[in-house]
Amino acid sequence: MIDVYSWATPNGHKVHIMLEECVLDYRAHAIDIGAGDQFTEDFLKISPNNKIPAIVDSDGPDGQPISMFESGAILIYLAGKTGKFLGTTDREKFNVLQWVMFQMGGLGPMLGQAHHFRIYAPEKIEYAVNRYSNEAKRLYGVLDKQLSKTPYLAGDEYTIADIACFPWTRSWKNQGIELSDFPNVQRWFDAINARPAVQRGVTVLADKRKALTDDKAKDILFGNTQYQKR
Amino acid sequence: MIDVYSWATPNGHKVHIMLEECVLDYRAHAIDIGAGDQFTEDFLKISPNNKIPAIVDSDGPDGQPISMFESGAILIYLAGKTGKFLGTTDREKFNVLQWVMFQMGGLGPMLGQAHHFRIYAPEKIEYAVNRYSNEAKRLYGVLDKQLSKTPYLAGDEYTIADIACFPWTRSWKNQGIELSDFPNVQRWFDAINARPAVQRGVTVLADKRKALTDDKAKDILFGNTQYQKR
Repeated sequence: MIDVYSWATPNGHKVHIMLEECVLDYRAHAIDIGAGDQFTEDFLKISPNNKIPAIVDSDGPDGQPISMFESGAILIYLAGKTGKFLGTTDREKFNVLQWVMFQMGGLGPMLGQAHHFRIYAPEKIEYAVNRYSNEAKRLYGVLDKQLSKTPYLAGDEYTIADIACFPWTRSWKNQGIELSDFPNVQRWFDAINARPAVQRGVTVLADKRKALTDDKAKDILFGNTQYQKR
Repeated sequence: MIDVYSWATPNGHKVHIMLEECVLDYRAHAIDIGAGDQFTEDFLKISPNNKIPAIVDSDGPDGQPISMFESGAILIYLAGKTGKFLGTTDREKFNVLQWVMFQMGGLGPMLGQAHHFRIYAPEKIEYAVNRYSNEAKRLYGVLDKQLSKTPYLAGDEYTIADIACFPWTRSWKNQGIELSDFPNVQRWFDAINARPAVQRGVTVLADKRKALTDDKAKDILFGNTQYQKR
């Protein structure tokens, strides 16, 4: 059994999708990052960087429990555990790995900054909005060029490189992107979005996030600036 | 023989240090990112995201040449090739992997933004300077806490997790950090900094960067706003 401590965000979705794709037994536990759940001592023990997602697998590589943090590491761990979505030969694996790293080091962090300065920052700072909106366009251009050559990011097969990148591209509107400007990304996006495991994965914990968001909205409506976790 | 296409930056240093630590035969080729070398067609073929470093190993996993991009993927590739700095058991390997991902997804991108807004941005934007300076402090706190438990990031042994993080912490002054505020990071930094392979690694291509920088300074001095590559 795998326990996933997570939230319905792009980095959470990656792992939820992978668990669904691999048909693994898992339990999802909500770590409400809006309410500060990520700072509890129990969570810190398995995720020392205070970030979701983290997992605990009762059946680790040596049969003993193992915990993992960082979504990219978890994807590689689950791919290793199941022998799925990471290619077959070493050459294929290293090719997948470099596109997973592209997501971890570039696509995720930079689109995250675009979300922040375009949507969440309390002041609108033109320089920062432009910086990260331009970087978003550049990154979608890199994806589009790669996907003009191959159906999926690392070649003919759907891999954890696609599972890593896809959830970040779901929020293209918040990144100042028109998906139709990137026809190869659009085709890739539609293909992945149609997968039943992906459709299940993106709903994991989404109801909890929505319920809390609604509640938070009510709190703010009634004058409570600090959201109290139930 | 490994050809590394790179520059004397934190992400470049990671690979130069690893090549030195593993005592691999390599040739370093300067990709001057200040002069736009990263946008040439030849470089794009091996690094589709226009970023240094990239490598071409004439002796890939199947005996054929292989190219790799993304510094984190290259570290894992070289660790796999040599059997060094990635732990022995699967449990150890996954532990190292999560700290490599911490660097790739958090430490590198966020310290990079701190450098940008504190040093390079044409305007001083207080909100962004604070955002990334605070995140730098938080990340050094995560490192310090981890290094209070173990000599190196992933345990008792020096691994690619340390090789990934170390070059980013060399620029602590530019990140608004006082290294002495983080005594465990300071101890770890000093230990790594004293390694002969590390001392060799950080000098790779550094002379070219310095020469070009001096030349660029002269160009600007003489009124050329656009630096012309020699």
